[in-house]
Amino acid sequence: MPTNRQILLDNRPEGEARLSNFKLVSSETPALQEGEVLVRHHYLSLDPYMRGRMNDAKSYAACQPLGEVFQGGTVGEVVESRHPRYAVGDKVVGFGGWQEWSVVDAGKPGMLKKVDTTHVPLSYYLGAVGMPGVTAWYGLVKIIEPKPGETITVSAATGAVGSALGALAKARGCRVVGIAGGPEKCRYATDELGFDACIDYRQHPDVKSLSRALKEACPDGIDGHFENVGGYVLDAVLLRTNAFARIALCGMIAGYDGQPLPMANPQLLLVNRIKLQGFIVSEHMEVWPEALAELGGLVAAGKLRPRETVAQGIESAPEAFLGLLKGRNFGKQLVKLI
Amino acid sequence: MPTNRQILLDNRPEGEARLSNFKLVSSETPALQEGEVLVRHHYLSLDPYMRGRMNDAKSYAACQPLGEVFQGGTVGEVVESRHPRYAVGDKVVGFGGWQEWSVVDAGKPGMLKKVDTTHVPLSYYLGAVGMPGVTAWYGLVKIIEPKPGETITVSAATGAVGSALGALAKARGCRVVGIAGGPEKCRYATDELGFDACIDYRQHPDVKSLSRALKEACPDGIDGHFENVGGYVLDAVLLRTNAFARIALCGMIAGYDGQPLPMANPQLLLVNRIKLQGFIVSEHMEVWPEALAELGGLVAAGKLRPRETVAQGIESAPEAFLGLLKGRNFGKQLVKLI
Repeated sequence: MPTNRQILLDNRPEGEARLSNFKLVSSETPALQEGEVLVRHHYLSLDPYMRGRMNDAKSYAACQPLGEVFQGGTVGEVVESRHPRYAVGDKVVGFGGWQEWSVVDAGKPGMLKKVDTTHVPLSYYLGAVGMPGVTAWYGLVKIIEPKPGETITVSAATGAVGSALGALAKARGCRVVGIAGGPEKCRYATDELGFDACIDYRQHPDVKSLSRALKEACPDGIDGHFENVGGYVLDAVLLRTNAFARIALCGMIAGYDGQPLPMANPQLLLVNRIKLQGFIVSEHMEVWPEALAELGGLVAAGKLRPRETVAQGIESAPEAFLGLLKGRNFGKQLVKLI
Repeated sequence: MPTNRQILLDNRPEGEARLSNFKLVSSETPALQEGEVLVRHHYLSLDPYMRGRMNDAKSYAACQPLGEVFQGGTVGEVVESRHPRYAVGDKVVGFGGWQEWSVVDAGKPGMLKKVDTTHVPLSYYLGAVGMPGVTAWYGLVKIIEPKPGETITVSAATGAVGSALGALAKARGCRVVGIAGGPEKCRYATDELGFDACIDYRQHPDVKSLSRALKEACPDGIDGHFENVGGYVLDAVLLRTNAFARIALCGMIAGYDGQPLPMANPQLLLVNRIKLQGFIVSEHMEVWPEALAELGGLVAAGKLRPRETVAQGIESAPEAFLGLLKGRNFGKQLVKLI
């Protein structure tokens, strides 16, 4: 059996996450039991939610156990199978974690899914046509419920979730305004993702300045907002909301290291009769087929052109993950293993 | 025609509202035109939302014009009529404002409603079987959507809205826990309103202490919350919410004088996948008939026994209103004019 390099969570961060929280080990992959398959991982998915799982504290994501393989989504290829539904060569998406290989009990529901790579590259099943894409779909369709002509804003606009949100909202006839870090990301949002405007928050480092920029980019106010960041970004958006605005609260990456992240003016939620709802997409598996079908269609039609930032080799995963938390990625952050 | 004493808004408060913001004047009531009726007001309704209307700033309630009769709900009796649907002696609820008499264009939809005082005292149409009652109904039924066995909390629990909320939630098989100011109000909540428990926030003046008291009173956590107050009360409640809790945001009286009222830990909205929604009941007129029918039934059955604090005479309205903002009332605050 092949040697399997794995990244474990070695200890929990105090404040900011660090490389020293992780540990690289090697082990032999065990021989397959009846019903199991051996998957060679091609890509690991790196996602902001993983930061929450590193803490012991209560979070929406279950806690990552210490000393075990760091959990996360993976795509790969079946290289050995003792399960009748899987054949060698099948491309599969699963939750194999930060390791090069995984042995999967393929009969357990939800463990593995075969995917078709004729029209959609394998890596996209970790991004636009995977969990991040469905996250955008759920927040937009089920919480924001946009109407044509409405203005929708999204923070972390060029990330895996934000870029899908933009394409989905444009497909519904909305004006879409992104918030992202740096001129290159903002150009990508408007030129390639079809956003109507994108605001560089680095040019607007306080709530007053950002809310002024939002006023300019959203002359009719904000009807729906998809929040990935929190903090002063959310405060600035709230100042520009219209009556009956809806806010899908997906992430608050600004507070992942435990910073206090107060909302300055919750009275606006009342004044503007806002609905704000937190969610986690894995609790809404019923929408996945419909969402993935639409997302796959948008990719196939060239209306959703996801960017990827790809780190090479299992050993690069921790550093790439820390970069993601600081917004150093451009689009979906992946680790390529082959 | 009778002399009509009226309270006008004379100037807008800076910070706290004061007696000097109001002005008492007298005028003759004009002669009736075709289609009008003359109503003698028996009671004026005093409600927390009125504080928001005193400001020039954007609020959920429209701004009260300066130099005009202070707007508000009224109940009274028709004493003269030039409209075929209204007869002398009819008891009516309307929006006559802080004055002793009003001349009403009775044909305009929504201006006047005849009410039956056989089983429900006239004043209740300004409280439990009026706007405050429907406010509780909307927040509970349409936003919180309680299930039997769930735990529901409400701040300002013994006020006109809170007491109705308690009865409505008990009728749905919930555990109901109030938050109110002082031992007398808390006793009334448990002994007469049927609350399962009531916490005296004056005994718990900070978020840590109040959240500990909530933990004790809500051993299974909080599934739904109806917010009238905001500030540290809401912060403490958030710490005790269960996954998928719903919060109906009805008022934030703690911030009515313009105090900053930040929410300490909005991450909890995400961690617990909470839905929080602000609303104003006058935008949901479609629910009024169903809500009023249930509220009237609860009163008739003795399951909702509203308290009233009654000030006497039009001249007492401003001071009674300022007392309401400080929680000096016990139950629905009224001004009796006859």
